Amino acid sequence: MAESTRNDSSNESLSPFGVARATIQGKPLSQQELDRYNDFFKASLYLCLGMIYLRANPLLREPLVKDHLKLRLLGHFGSTPGQTLAYMHFNRLIKKYDLNAIYISGPGHGAPAVLAQSYLEGVYSDIYPDCSQDTEGLRRFFKQFSFPGGIGSHATPETPGSIHEGGELGYAISHAFGAVFDQPDLIALTVVGDGEAETGPMATSWHSNKFLNPKVDGAVLPVLHLNGYKINNPTVLARISRKELEDLFNGYGWAPHFVEGDDLDSMQQAMAATLEHCVIEIRRFQKEARHASSSPRPSSSSYPSPSFPARPRWPMIILRTPKGWTAPRKIDGNYLEGFWRAHQVPITDVATNSEHLAILEKWMRSYEPQRLFPDGHLVPELRDMCPKGNRRMSANPVANGGIIRQHLRLPDFREYAIPVERSAGVRVSSMLNMAGYLRDVMGTNPHTFRLFGPDETQSNKLDKVYEVGKKVWMGEYFEEDKNGGNLSPEGRVMEILSEHTCEGWLEGYVLTGRHGLFNSYEPFIPIVSSMVNQHCKWIEKCLEVEWRHRVCSLNILLTAVVWRQDHNGFTHQDPGFLDVVVNKSPEVVRVYLPPDGNCLLSVMHHCFASSNYVNVIVADKQEHLQYLTMEEAIEHCTKGIGIWPQFSTDAGADPDVVMASCGDVSTHESIAAIDLLLRHFPELRIRCVNVVDLFKLISHIDHPHGLTDREWCAAFTSNRPIIFNFHSYPWLVHRLTYRRPGASQNLHVRGYKEKGNIDTPLELAIRNQTDRFSLAIDALDRIPHLGNSRAAARESLRNEQIRARNVAFETGQDPHSLTEWMWDRGFKK
Amino acid sequence: MAESTRNDSSNESLSPFGVARATIQGKPLSQQELDRYNDFFKASLYLCLGMIYLRANPLLREPLVKDHLKLRLLGHFGSTPGQTLAYMHFNRLIKKYDLNAIYISGPGHGAPAVLAQSYLEGVYSDIYPDCSQDTEGLRRFFKQFSFPGGIGSHATPETPGSIHEGGELGYAISHAFGAVFDQPDLIALTVVGDGEAETGPMATSWHSNKFLNPKVDGAVLPVLHLNGYKINNPTVLARISRKELEDLFNGYGWAPHFVEGDDLDSMQQAMAATLEHCVIEIRRFQKEARHASSSPRPSSSSYPSPSFPARPRWPMIILRTPKGWTAPRKIDGNYLEGFWRAHQVPITDVATNSEHLAILEKWMRSYEPQRLFPDGHLVPELRDMCPKGNRRMSANPVANGGIIRQHLRLPDFREYAIPVERSAGVRVSSMLNMAGYLRDVMGTNPHTFRLFGPDETQSNKLDKVYEVGKKVWMGEYFEEDKNGGNLSPEGRVMEILSEHTCEGWLEGYVLTGRHGLFNSYEPFIPIVSSMVNQHCKWIEKCLEVEWRHRVCSLNILLTAVVWRQDHNGFTHQDPGFLDVVVNKSPEVVRVYLPPDGNCLLSVMHHCFASSNYVNVIVADKQEHLQYLTMEEAIEHCTKGIGIWPQFSTDAGADPDVVMASCGDVSTHESIAAIDLLLRHFPELRIRCVNVVDLFKLISHIDHPHGLTDREWCAAFTSNRPIIFNFHSYPWLVHRLTYRRPGASQNLHVRGYKEKGNIDTPLELAIRNQTDRFSLAIDALDRIPHLGNSRAAARESLRNEQIRARNVAFETGQDPHSLTEWMWDRGFKK
Repeated sequence: MAESTRNDSSNESLSPFGVARATIQGKPLSQQELDRYNDFFKASLYLCLGMIYLRANPLLREPLVKDHLKLRLLGHFGSTPGQTLAYMHFNRLIKKYDLNAIYISGPGHGAPAVLAQSYLEGVYSDIYPDCSQDTEGLRRFFKQFSFPGGIGSHATPETPGSIHEGGELGYAISHAFGAVFDQPDLIALTVVGDGEAETGPMATSWHSNKFLNPKVDGAVLPVLHLNGYKINNPTVLARISRKELEDLFNGYGWAPHFVEGDDLDSMQQAMAATLEHCVIEIRRFQKEARHASSSPRPSSSSYPSPSFPARPRWPMIILRTPKGWTAPRKIDGNYLEGFWRAHQVPITDVATNSEHLAILEKWMRSYEPQRLFPDGHLVPELRDMCPKGNRRMSANPVANGGIIRQHLRLPDFREYAIPVERSAGVRVSSMLNMAGYLRDVMGTNPHTFRLFGPDETQSNKLDKVYEVGKKVWMGEYFEEDKNGGNLSPEGRVMEILSEHTCEGWLEGYVLTGRHGLFNSYEPFIPIVSSMVNQHCKWIEKCLEVEWRHRVCSLNILLTAVVWRQDHNGFTHQDPGFLDVVVNKSPEVVRVYLPPDGNCLLSVMHHCFASSNYVNVIVADKQEHLQYLTMEEAIEHCTKGIGIWPQFSTDAGADPDVVMASCGDVSTHESIAAIDLLLRHFPELRIRCVNVVDLFKLISHIDHPHGLTDREWCAAFTSNRPIIFNFHSYPWLVHRLTYRRPGASQNLHVRGYKEKGNIDTPLELAIRNQTDRFSLAIDALDRIPHLGNSRAAARESLRNEQIRARNVAFETGQDPHSLTEWMWDRGFKK
Repeated sequence: MAESTRNDSSNESLSPFGVARATIQGKPLSQQELDRYNDFFKASLYLCLGMIYLRANPLLREPLVKDHLKLRLLGHFGSTPGQTLAYMHFNRLIKKYDLNAIYISGPGHGAPAVLAQSYLEGVYSDIYPDCSQDTEGLRRFFKQFSFPGGIGSHATPETPGSIHEGGELGYAISHAFGAVFDQPDLIALTVVGDGEAETGPMATSWHSNKFLNPKVDGAVLPVLHLNGYKINNPTVLARISRKELEDLFNGYGWAPHFVEGDDLDSMQQAMAATLEHCVIEIRRFQKEARHASSSPRPSSSSYPSPSFPARPRWPMIILRTPKGWTAPRKIDGNYLEGFWRAHQVPITDVATNSEHLAILEKWMRSYEPQRLFPDGHLVPELRDMCPKGNRRMSANPVANGGIIRQHLRLPDFREYAIPVERSAGVRVSSMLNMAGYLRDVMGTNPHTFRLFGPDETQSNKLDKVYEVGKKVWMGEYFEEDKNGGNLSPEGRVMEILSEHTCEGWLEGYVLTGRHGLFNSYEPFIPIVSSMVNQHCKWIEKCLEVEWRHRVCSLNILLTAVVWRQDHNGFTHQDPGFLDVVVNKSPEVVRVYLPPDGNCLLSVMHHCFASSNYVNVIVADKQEHLQYLTMEEAIEHCTKGIGIWPQFSTDAGADPDVVMASCGDVSTHESIAAIDLLLRHFPELRIRCVNVVDLFKLISHIDHPHGLTDREWCAAFTSNRPIIFNFHSYPWLVHRLTYRRPGASQNLHVRGYKEKGNIDTPLELAIRNQTDRFSLAIDALDRIPHLGNSRAAARESLRNEQIRARNVAFETGQDPHSLTEWMWDRGFKK
């Protein structure tokens, strides 16, 4: 067995082959331990190959023949050896130091590594008794892998101990940080693939260390695995100089420790020593920070000194091993081990090429399955190397967050009600008002709720929350921050200008049993639409996994909405996130567009109290008319849709027209259109319908919230014109309602149709025909029997619209009378 | 004036205030030059404040009163001074070295800086004669900014010299690299905001330097502007130690040079010296690389030595200045300069607070507008500091890429035709076949076409392209790469595992007049859906800007489609990108789903020959049945939709059912369903309709490709059941067709409805009811007058379906007969 040798700059080969080169010296393992780790490594890798190849003869008690092979070979071997090395040596430290840890597998299809460990720990068999710890159980364990009706090649929800599937790459580190926030004893051992490391979300998520407080949070121990290759390409980080690599991670604020090579014995020693060094460092940093806190703690309003608490240079490991380590180096003259050919199924033609089958058999037998699993059960001395009970990483309840989830203690949202004496008689920022409630949700749950956002919380008028929880900031503090900075090492608001990182943190936080809210400008939430897709898929699949408990909902509050992005221009006008969300499974997605402040309170409360959903709430932050008292709002939101009698003149009879709306700005314009219509035709029977819960529009067959057709007709009729003013792209409403009785003839939807520039709010609405004048004209054009007055009314409305536009083009502002428009027509209520 | 002092580690203050600290020493400016730069700086900043505040009295010839102010104050001052410093000192070098350069403004609302420079260069007045170089022109220039009907506060398409709007942050560097690829003399001076620098896409795009070849490409000169604050927060990079910052960018492979401070004279000298150092370095690297190429050039198949050509450590600048530099330091005791309050409109209440109005006036007058613009025209000695003609960065034709765009030389795609003697009689990978055409497109256009992809080109069966252009790789080369690595410093294929970077590079490449194709797995293209949104908005807005020429289309080829992601599981099943794209303006988006290989060729040709679109092409990479001869394919694709007589039995008469499809896998199952139906009911009159061009489905009123209702009825009828098998989420078809005659009753759409796991292709289809059996049963259930045989046929189909599933669950594969299904029913053709 060779020595670990200290890497120096004269030793700059980037090849992963050779005796271990490691930053941290030491040989912590005795010869007996070393032998055992070599055996454990073999046992682990044998299981991986078994999963990829075998449907029978699981321990190779018979010579390997084609009939033992799966007909369709699937699975990925490439990153398994490196992941196994990290996992098993961390187990040693879990036992030695009684660590509370989870394992996050970043590499895409890296599940075989994780599944093997869970099986070896016995957890897999506990949860899935079919895959028992015997020969037949092993056979089943192999066969189900990447097999119809079985389990996937990622660390899917079916995988014990997983909170991170990694199908779409890039989020391992942000998920890990989310998991350890507010879990001071937790360590997330996180292997990051070097392919994944090229993604943008991963590249910025390394900066998460500036937002982690060693006093109250746990630690993330990243292992950047320089596996060398992606599917068909070398990786960027594996081909830059060691100096650049070290600089890069020093620059990110980590203390990188290298472990490089392929010599088994020396690599085992190096990994054992390095991981132990990291754990000791982590515990030291935590102890120092927590010891400091026993001295008088500064009040939350005080200005923290730059050195308190210090941001530690947390340790990380850069592990360089050959891709497909321990596979045959070459087959038929082509490199396998240490090249991208080892990425997926390492030898693909074993069913048709008997020489290759023999190579595979020899390779598999080199792992000595019959010695290590003599009766299909791992030998006791290896089994004893695993931790016990919940200390086993695949059994840690943190990774089944629903188990440890505590319900939020929610203040009574009614106490934050906006007084509404007369519907539409007062203008208030619903968001500003709701911020008081949000502050108290945060204050009442000081360890289990955080607010996330990409530098927009204050802009979104939610800054009241800083009264109980400032923004987490572990960087330098300047004099200027004293006044209005709202920064603190012990804050509760997480702000980084990366929607990806915010979303990743929140996902990790929620999946480990805590609660949170992501607030964002509406136009830029599409940045994370693919992440939200993937989270929806995760929680939907969890519903099918019996042992998974329901987790907290992932709540997304969208504000600075399209209709108030007039002045920011075309790039800021995109309400299309809803189109993405509604395609996901009806079991897990909910979309709410509260029309006013009391509805917003009711909806927020509902979302915070829910579980296992992705809740999307869309509400503007500017001042808006308020329509409903709290009691009315609760009723309206509970129903999700309702006729608003105070703006209706149909007295329960068949209306001439239904003026419907969904979204706060859209509702406002729709009601203003009713006003205009009645000015011209006071006898019109108009019905005002408002939608809070978007899924009310779809059939109850397709979504649990959907209306029956009968309920639909009771609100919208089946034969009267409906002018529907919608917050987002109008076609979404058609997609939801295409089967409704009469909808194809009667339903006229207005919404954002990709028309905009530097505008005023009215001008932007007019371009998209969602303004009061256009809506009123829409109605006029569709109500039968209006007679000769129709043309005159239309012209009058058009002229009023033109006059209003002219004011905007002259002054840069909409007419005061319009923006200050109030409801004063004295409807009976 | 103070000295520049060399920064050292003992001088670690991160404050942006004080005498310049700079890595590069030198005082290149004479006192006269220094005075002029100070004046030019003042003139520039004055214009910025004018844009934000003034609608009258543009040169402050009268005392400033409320009536001179815009009623609605909009715009951002924060990053303007730093951007101006970079821009104007680069002008000096453009003149001195006759540089060909463009300027990319990364900071979000940074347009005032760019607009001011364009105005000072005279370009703005040339393009927009209203904004002439006199007092009235200046007044108009001010008033139109962030004003309805005017221009935005980003570097929008209306902004001369811009290829990067920056509304959604994070793409400045990838756009810059895209612009300089294959433009060996171009330098893209790129200011990156420190807010933007926190985004994921930006964080990984710094690695673009590993993909730039100094022989054939130009250079990007990044200026990371540590402005200190985002909207309401400090920035991460401005609050880490200088050592960490230096390490980070060294680690990214750049040579960072610091320029920090706020003392005007010393900062001017430092910036002038540092920029010049960088330009000299860039030219030296280029010269070295290009000189080397005059020695015998290695053939493209040879193995490059690790040192040839070397990847230079390109220079970059880290510029630290106070946010809102030169603004009042404090107002009413609150920090303004050097704090986030200077981000947007620096003093907001000037209309109502006369003291603040006086502060603003004093501030504006400190820039001496009347001395510098005596007759509303910049004094000649300052005007002379700008370059001339197209050397002015805001006049560079590269940034109006349509001007320099050359049409692709396209080989005749017919020559790559797949022979189809009998429709559905042969199975071929359409993608593999098309790769030959793509190879020759690339080979025929060796300097104006590149292929981009996130490590999936080979997996996507496009590797034939490596015959004429390998993958660009400027990193280390290993022995293993010789066999199958396909790497070369002078490649034409751009692969990094970052969809963001690929998309950003391609956007930059296309916007500067070149051509390209992005190939990606379908499930992960949603990662860049927001980027594609923004690009659509850019090219749509360009249509309204008279002087902008049409650029090449941005082509996105999606493969490894949802229906062949059965084995990869649920995370890999997401065809929702189309929902995002169709919401964009019909002027700019096109979506094609070619059913077979000849159609794919025809579609690709069409897309390559088009301009100013975002073309999305969806086609699987596996083997599929081939249906159309090349002539038939051309006709089918030209029409975009067609009845396929070879699979129809309605003989032109009214059919009993229309079996429609869109997408290759979907078409295959639909035709198999026709086969099943005819087995049970040989006399059925079935019409087979296929859709290539998705927008055919929508009304011609809403999209130029749309069918009229009459054309719709000619294909689909208005009263017969239509079983439409769709590639993506079924609701998209309903969204497109909700107004079609009879559609609400007759149109039954099947598609992916978010049901999946580890499956076989058939199992995945069955879960989503898109398989042949389900489609046939769908048809049976909707065709009237089938009598008693209906139930028996349904049961028989159901049993056949169950048997097929059972095979899959047993073997892991679909029944051979099913996957190898061929068309052998002898339809008349």
